[in-house]
Formats: sequence, C-alpha cells, structure tokens
Amino acid sequence: MISVCLLGAGNVASHLFKALNNTENVTVVQWFNRDLKKISTDKNDVHITDNIDALKHADVYILAVSDDAIADLSTHLPFENRFVVHTSGSVNIYDMDKKNRRGVFYPLQTFSKNVPVTFKDVPICIEALDKNDLNTLKQLAESLGCSWYKINTEQRQTLHLSAVFVNNFTNQLYRIAHEISDAKSINFDILKPLILETARKVQETSPFMAQTGPAKRNDKKTIKKHLKLLENEQHKAIYELLTQSIKNTHGR
Amino acid sequence: MISVCLLGAGNVASHLFKALNNTENVTVVQWFNRDLKKISTDKNDVHITDNIDALKHADVYILAVSDDAIADLSTHLPFENRFVVHTSGSVNIYDMDKKNRRGVFYPLQTFSKNVPVTFKDVPICIEALDKNDLNTLKQLAESLGCSWYKINTEQRQTLHLSAVFVNNFTNQLYRIAHEISDAKSINFDILKPLILETARKVQETSPFMAQTGPAKRNDKKTIKKHLKLLENEQHKAIYELLTQSIKNTHGR
Repeated sequence: MISVCLLGAGNVASHLFKALNNTENVTVVQWFNRDLKKISTDKNDVHITDNIDALKHADVYILAVSDDAIADLSTHLPFENRFVVHTSGSVNIYDMDKKNRRGVFYPLQTFSKNVPVTFKDVPICIEALDKNDLNTLKQLAESLGCSWYKINTEQRQTLHLSAVFVNNFTNQLYRIAHEISDAKSINFDILKPLILETARKVQETSPFMAQTGPAKRNDKKTIKKHLKLLENEQHKAIYELLTQSIKNTHGR
Repeated sequence: MISVCLLGAGNVASHLFKALNNTENVTVVQWFNRDLKKISTDKNDVHITDNIDALKHADVYILAVSDDAIADLSTHLPFENRFVVHTSGSVNIYDMDKKNRRGVFYPLQTFSKNVPVTFKDVPICIEALDKNDLNTLKQLAESLGCSWYKINTEQRQTLHLSAVFVNNFTNQLYRIAHEISDAKSINFDILKPLILETARKVQETSPFMAQTGPAKRNDKKTIKKHLKLLENEQHKAIYELLTQSIKNTHGR
C-alpha cells in the first residue's frame, strides 16, 4: 500500500485525486490546498487541509501545482527527508528543496476540467534521485494501470516541448481549418473523421511514412492554388513554412 | 440498383472498388485502367478493361484518376449525355468535358495502400449540375453508409485546403516531435496517447475551446525555454509562428 499526500487543486491534481482515490493499492491520506473551497467538494472522501504545518505522514507527497509555485512550496514543507515529487513537464528535479528526497511524476496527457480521463492510457514519465523512490513511482504508475517511462529532466523538457507541437500547435491547425471552412459556410464536422484518422495512422506508422499531399509530392500547381485561396497573411505564412518543412523532410 | 463504371487504379479507386463491390444496392459493371496489370487481381470479381472504347453502359462513371488526368480522360469518353463524376478535392466540376452530365463524388479522407478504410466514417462531398444526378450521388453515398454533404466547387477547394492543414501539416508536426524526441533517445510511443486525445477532443469541443498551453497562457518563461531547446532553425520558426497564431486567436 502506498500512502499519498496530494498538494494543489488544478486540473492535474483533480484528475490525479479521482484516479488515486479509486486505486486499490493506494491511499490518499490527505489533500492540501491553500484555498480550501476548491477541494471541499471531496471532503467526505479524503481529509482536506489548508494548513501546510498540519501535513500528515505519507510515502509520497505530490506537488501538483503550477510550475512557478513548485520551488516555493517545496521549501515550505514542514519536514525533511521525505519523498516529494512534482508533476510538471518543464521544472527541473533540482528546483525543489533538497531537504527532502526528490522525484518527478509527470503524466503526459492533456487534462481538461469536466472531461474524464482514462488513466490507463496516460503515459507517466518518472524520475527520482534514489532507486527505492524510483521504485515507489513505478508502483504508483502501475497501480493506476499506466505505462511508465524512466525519463531524466532534459528528456522530460524535450517531451514537454514535443507535446506543444503535437497538442497545442496541432490544435491550432484544426482552429485555422475551422476558420477557413467557416468563412465558406462549410460544416466543420466534415473534417472530423480526417482529423481522427490522421492521429490514428501514426499510432502504427511513423509520421514520415504516413505523409501524403501536395507538399510531399511537390505538386506546385495545387500549392499555388491553395496559397491563392488563403486570405489571411498569417495562414499563408504557416502554409508556406510547413510546406517547406515537409519538402525538407522528404528531400524535395 | 445503381450501376457504376470505375476508371482509375490509385488509392481512391482501389478503396472505392472494394467498398462499392461489397454494397447491396450497387453493381460495379466494369473497371477501366490504361494499365490492366494494376487491376487484374480483381478480374474474377469485375469485368476489367484497358480499352476506353469498350466501356459498358452505367448509371455513373467515376473518374478516380489523378487531378491532372481528369479533364483529358473526360474528353476521351466514347459517349455523350451520361453521368460522369470525378473524385478530386480540387478540380472544378466544369473542367470535365460538357458532352456528358457532370458531377463530383469527393470522399474526404486519407487513403493509404493496404490500410483498410471503414467507409461509413468517410464524409462524401457531392456536387452535380442536375437535380436527378445529385440524387443518384446521395443514394450512392447512402448505400456505402456514408454521410454526404452538398458542396459546391469553391467550398470543396476550401475543404481540400483545410484538409492539408488538419492532415498533411498536422502530420508534419508529429514528424517534428518525432525528430526532436529521437534526438534525446525518447520513445515516440510516449506521445501517441496525447496525439490521439488531441484529435478526439475536437470531435466534441471546438478547437478554440480545446486550446491549452504556454502560447494561450502567454507564458513567456516556458516559450523562451522551448525556443532555447530547439536546435533546428526551421523548427524554431514554426514554433514562433504557431505561437503567434495562437496568441492572435486568443487575444494575447
């Protein structure tokens, strides 16, 4: 049995709480947040507190707070030599106060309020300075049914950057397609199966192998047509830059 | 019963043949291709020919050939006043020879060799100059179990452009993430659930609502960190341009 004390009340904290609280080999002994109101709906399921000096003993303290708050919160913990992890993709493990044993438990997924997360599909990137602590994180991930990967800080920061490309930037391309089609009274639903299939394809094929389209074929006629259709200068610039990137990748 | 004569042997033609040939209310009476070898594996299931003058009578002739070949093939058809459609996202309906009744049957999906397509998930964009012909295309789409949308040429060309954004460009972002993570010996599998979830999210939420991340938050510290991590100048340019695009969309 792993006992966990959870700190924070954002999306990651809330989803983690639900998942951990429903896991057999894990007990959430306490949930801390400075603003008690944000976690009070769960007060029947877990001991909640807004008093950092009242933190109970636990095997792992999970700081699921914003990047900027991690270092500060770690210095205010009223104990030493316990195991403390953060959940951030970009914060260095050494940014936390060394008075405790340090680690990282970074779930690589996009979390939204009110959208349930199937945790077993969430890869967990784990890091710890001590072998036993690393083991604890492995067990924690496995209890949640997650795949885990041993990832150091540099790799994790690169993953976080890669996630911006496949999540934020990809979503912005969806947004641009939405704008372009809206302008011609086209139902965005028509594009949804293609969006899904594009993501599905690279589950089994490499993105390199999956590529198709005018840029890969260096089909100048279609590219010219498309650029003429684009009215927004920034959309044009994105079209040109990504077309060039595809050409470079595929040696055109 | 709708009788179809299929012309061409590319990915769209091959997938269409399989789907149409397995559909109750449709008969493929003939499959034409200039190079007979490419379609000869199906010669037991359908009459095949490489002689354009030997084309049989059919309710619909589907020209599933490359964009550049459509106009020329339409002039070489040895009959008049029959219903002829192409399957292209970008070719104008009027580019086909007017000696026949013209239409478009554009399946908006990415087709790969050897990857089976679930046709009922493929939206079909239909266009025809005659009302009865439009009806034939509706029936054809419905027989395949597809959703259909009445789309004119201008809208279809815009859809084709949008498809480049959500398919080719998105896939290139996956590719860049693959390159970046490979360079740090990170398993690309870690990013796959996020890729899928990003596509799933916009099936129900608009891309505008689904957006998260440093660009939307205008988190300058993280953006600076990311730009420092990127070694390739083109990746940097793509990061900056898409970050700016997100900021513009979300009023930052």
